[in-house]
Amino acid sequence: MGNLNEKTIHSEEIFSGKVISLHLQDVELPNGRQSKREIIKHPGAVAILAVTDNNKIVMVEQFRKALERTIVEIPAGKLEKGEEPALCARRELEEETGYECENLELLVSFYTSPGFADEIVHLFVAKGLTKKENPATLDEDEFVNLEEITLDEAVQYIKDKKIFDAKTAYAVQYLQLQEALAKK
Amino acid sequence: MGNLNEKTIHSEEIFSGKVISLHLQDVELPNGRQSKREIIKHPGAVAILAVTDNNKIVMVEQFRKALERTIVEIPAGKLEKGEEPALCARRELEEETGYECENLELLVSFYTSPGFADEIVHLFVAKGLTKKENPATLDEDEFVNLEEITLDEAVQYIKDKKIFDAKTAYAVQYLQLQEALAKK
Repeated sequence: MGNLNEKTIHSEEIFSGKVISLHLQDVELPNGRQSKREIIKHPGAVAILAVTDNNKIVMVEQFRKALERTIVEIPAGKLEKGEEPALCARRELEEETGYECENLELLVSFYTSPGFADEIVHLFVAKGLTKKENPATLDEDEFVNLEEITLDEAVQYIKDKKIFDAKTAYAVQYLQLQEALAKK
Repeated sequence: MGNLNEKTIHSEEIFSGKVISLHLQDVELPNGRQSKREIIKHPGAVAILAVTDNNKIVMVEQFRKALERTIVEIPAGKLEKGEEPALCARRELEEETGYECENLELLVSFYTSPGFADEIVHLFVAKGLTKKENPATLDEDEFVNLEEITLDEAVQYIKDKKIFDAKTAYAVQYLQLQEALAKK
């Protein structure tokens, strides 16, 4: 099959909030018919796989209102308008964990829910961690518990559904892959 | 820190569509203050890492209106009301690729965007693939191109940002991990 594009015929903003906006679009399908698409726009986010010098993974436990429960995640946060992902990663790492890092490398970027949202996550690996003396603090509506766990513990957390989100599952699997490659 | 829960004070449905609904919630934070949460409700989805007998990964290229571009993904689809994830996986695999499978195993489930959405993806591994004679067909607003690629090609697709979503990146990394473990 050839062209898969869907042309926008009409787009209406239904809602614009402090994090997301919702758009309802009429589109023309590749076969000429019409359909509707429900689209969430999001500013994008960063996530940081931060590994301490004694090989622990820095995790934050956080209540997620969308899930009505707490889960354990790697540190993450939304991009501010025009903010460089790497700067955002350093800011979020400091705010959520009090750490600054010597080395920060982009591992991968991915869309989280391409079926309905344009949210992209830029996933960084941070090493050479040191606690900052007077770190910047969290946004006033953010509350987290800090944990530092081993890779084995992280794998167990996934089995126990304490770790339960895509970016953290990806980050843990990345460390498993690095370990397996190192042992070859 | 102790309790992280956010109590709902008021919840309003702003929009209810064919895929998602949007809810605006007033919450009480752990420190007693109030804030607002923008929440997307989604029926949940399945994704299928389908590997052929000659070790190719079955991929679908699809236009994603939220991204305004096509990306290459593992087959996936939304759960119908009350549908068992494993049955949904078999249905979506057949509709999108024409394959049925002998073995289907749940690999992992994860939330894609816990910051604002309750979408969960159940990721399955499908093996023992055979083409069905008269497969069920796609929904009338779905159009995909089928591709079967090697693991090396998939890794290159990630570098080239043709593969660009969390579930597919996770699935490809899973196969890299299996390969590394097998070589140990």
